Amino acid sequence: MIYLDNAATTPLLDEVLDEMLPYMKESYGNPSSLHKLGRQANNALELARKRIARLINSQGKVVFTSGATEANNLALKGLAYAMRDKGNHIITSTVEHEAVLEPCRELEREGFKVTYLPVDRNCIVDLDALERSIDEKTILVSIMFANNEVGTMQPVKKIAEIAHKHDVSFHTDAVQVVGKIPVDVRELDVDLITLSAHKMYGPKGVGALCINDDLKIESIMHGGGQENKIRSGTQNVAGIVGMGKAADIAIQKIDMYSSQVKNLCDSLVASVLKEIQHSKLNGHPTQRLPNNAHFTFLGVNGEDLIIKLDENGVAASTSSACSVQKQKASHVLKAMGFNHEEITGSLRLTLGIQNTEHEIEQTVANLSKVVHELREFSPYKFKYAMNQ
Amino acid sequence: MIYLDNAATTPLLDEVLDEMLPYMKESYGNPSSLHKLGRQANNALELARKRIARLINSQGKVVFTSGATEANNLALKGLAYAMRDKGNHIITSTVEHEAVLEPCRELEREGFKVTYLPVDRNCIVDLDALERSIDEKTILVSIMFANNEVGTMQPVKKIAEIAHKHDVSFHTDAVQVVGKIPVDVRELDVDLITLSAHKMYGPKGVGALCINDDLKIESIMHGGGQENKIRSGTQNVAGIVGMGKAADIAIQKIDMYSSQVKNLCDSLVASVLKEIQHSKLNGHPTQRLPNNAHFTFLGVNGEDLIIKLDENGVAASTSSACSVQKQKASHVLKAMGFNHEEITGSLRLTLGIQNTEHEIEQTVANLSKVVHELREFSPYKFKYAMNQ
Repeated sequence: MIYLDNAATTPLLDEVLDEMLPYMKESYGNPSSLHKLGRQANNALELARKRIARLINSQGKVVFTSGATEANNLALKGLAYAMRDKGNHIITSTVEHEAVLEPCRELEREGFKVTYLPVDRNCIVDLDALERSIDEKTILVSIMFANNEVGTMQPVKKIAEIAHKHDVSFHTDAVQVVGKIPVDVRELDVDLITLSAHKMYGPKGVGALCINDDLKIESIMHGGGQENKIRSGTQNVAGIVGMGKAADIAIQKIDMYSSQVKNLCDSLVASVLKEIQHSKLNGHPTQRLPNNAHFTFLGVNGEDLIIKLDENGVAASTSSACSVQKQKASHVLKAMGFNHEEITGSLRLTLGIQNTEHEIEQTVANLSKVVHELREFSPYKFKYAMNQ
Repeated sequence: MIYLDNAATTPLLDEVLDEMLPYMKESYGNPSSLHKLGRQANNALELARKRIARLINSQGKVVFTSGATEANNLALKGLAYAMRDKGNHIITSTVEHEAVLEPCRELEREGFKVTYLPVDRNCIVDLDALERSIDEKTILVSIMFANNEVGTMQPVKKIAEIAHKHDVSFHTDAVQVVGKIPVDVRELDVDLITLSAHKMYGPKGVGALCINDDLKIESIMHGGGQENKIRSGTQNVAGIVGMGKAADIAIQKIDMYSSQVKNLCDSLVASVLKEIQHSKLNGHPTQRLPNNAHFTFLGVNGEDLIIKLDENGVAASTSSACSVQKQKASHVLKAMGFNHEEITGSLRLTLGIQNTEHEIEQTVANLSKVVHELREFSPYKFKYAMNQ
């Protein structure tokens, strides 16, 4: 199996699992317990917290959650509820992950106002629209660091500047970026940032929201008051230990992304565009994740493509794993102005540090074959298949 | 280390870890992905779901969460929001876990009305008060199956009857019960039930809310629409697999609780009450968890006792692990009418299937020694130490 769905989830590294195992075996204490086993578990949490903070150069609070979805819910609702007295307006973009869009829609149902900023054809958020939409009721700007479907990186530093010029807090969902590109939250001036362990070779079921110390945020999960009273519930100790280790490894391996992974990805893109006619790369040509290749193959149905690639030993996706099971057209590609045919023919290949040159060559060969086959059966056959 | 804090968390069984490992190694797919690795992960979730349902004989939905705290938040807020049009009154008890009490307090801030039912000196909820407090605005009764501190089991079937007589839904937090005593949600007529993996030899970071199919519930975590659109976020696949396996093992080992564990616990109680003067067992004398021994040792500070026991190789707790770090007096013992001295001198020992007769004997010896030592330094010295 050639795994090219690393944006959906990454494999767990052996070194990460090795560090988790003691907390699934002998060190099984509840971190809130006073006895030795409890203190051991609590110490492990604190080490993981330091490691996460170091990865993004944060001096704020690291709040562990059950994943990025919860971290995004906490950032959006937690800040909205805490800032209710100041205002009720939130600004986000049309191309966010559902884990940002859906909490925004929920906040709208609760009486908040949300502006969804448009993007250009490359998926870059309109900064003029951002500045224009800020008013005295605006309390939060939430824009993703990089798009999970097409890989476009947003101008996060500029967005932070605009938000802060108007005294508005800035949150970014950075799950696709952290571990791949150096992220320094102090240099970027980000107030809240969402991380996910399983997007950076850590375990599923763990994420974090890192919060500037001067920001107030309300809890959305109420109970025993764990995580500095921000997030209740017995912590997933082994998972958090794994996320901490993954963060440590990410610091060491980040160079692999700018060299090895990016080179493989570039060669994948070049070969695909060369080998397969009527194909194009989506997302920004240069401001993009080093591991994301998102294509449109005209005259092909992306879901058929996934299934055929799967039969040929290549794991890929059409868009976000979180939305494929809903069988609906990508809201990201729609927002980018793509027409139905462009959306239907889309495929996302996302690389990881485990992929090899040989795998990429095989993928290009398989993809070329599969696209050709599908076009033979396509209603667009005479438009595209002949030239193939 | 003699581990007698199984109510705070249980060790992870080797068989459970063995079943989790493939999902932390080769089967690392995102369960929402269409390709083979994704389908593998999704199949694993569905098997776990069936196993959980079988453990409690549920025919409803099993919704996986990040733990019992989230499941309780989902049950209370999710049902309250969904039933807003019918009414705004919730009934719970004064002795619930913080993971029920705090969501209730949050709902009160949001305009809901909550009745906190009193308990008697044995921690049994007042059923007359329950029936009296139901009115036409009542939408939910949430009463724990067994108290996590003193081990008292509530008359859940009667509570369900009373609630349903008035057409009110019934939720129970059963984290301390499931896996120790047979629980049949259909026979008990429970509408919503909260489970936790790490209280039954599964991993931390996973829980479930099982919901009657005819009940409507709103999401509290918004995003990609996983878990039947009730709980968004990429599932903790390995953790859920572990919870499923733990459920399967629990079915097999439930008899150990009514025999081995209960016998050890009974002998612990008998020995302690015999060996240590001015000690008493708290909670209901018979309607109690088979593994819970909760004592008061007059003239002793429970936290000193924990620390001394820890030094002597016994892991114990004063009350809930979730509240110990807050250093506040147990709300449960207060609600039971205990005075300050009775609360201060309390100790919870909770057994598991791994404990041995020898460990219990050692514990009694250590506890006896430590209580004696502490009483020597106690301001109550002349009241209790002389008789020791």
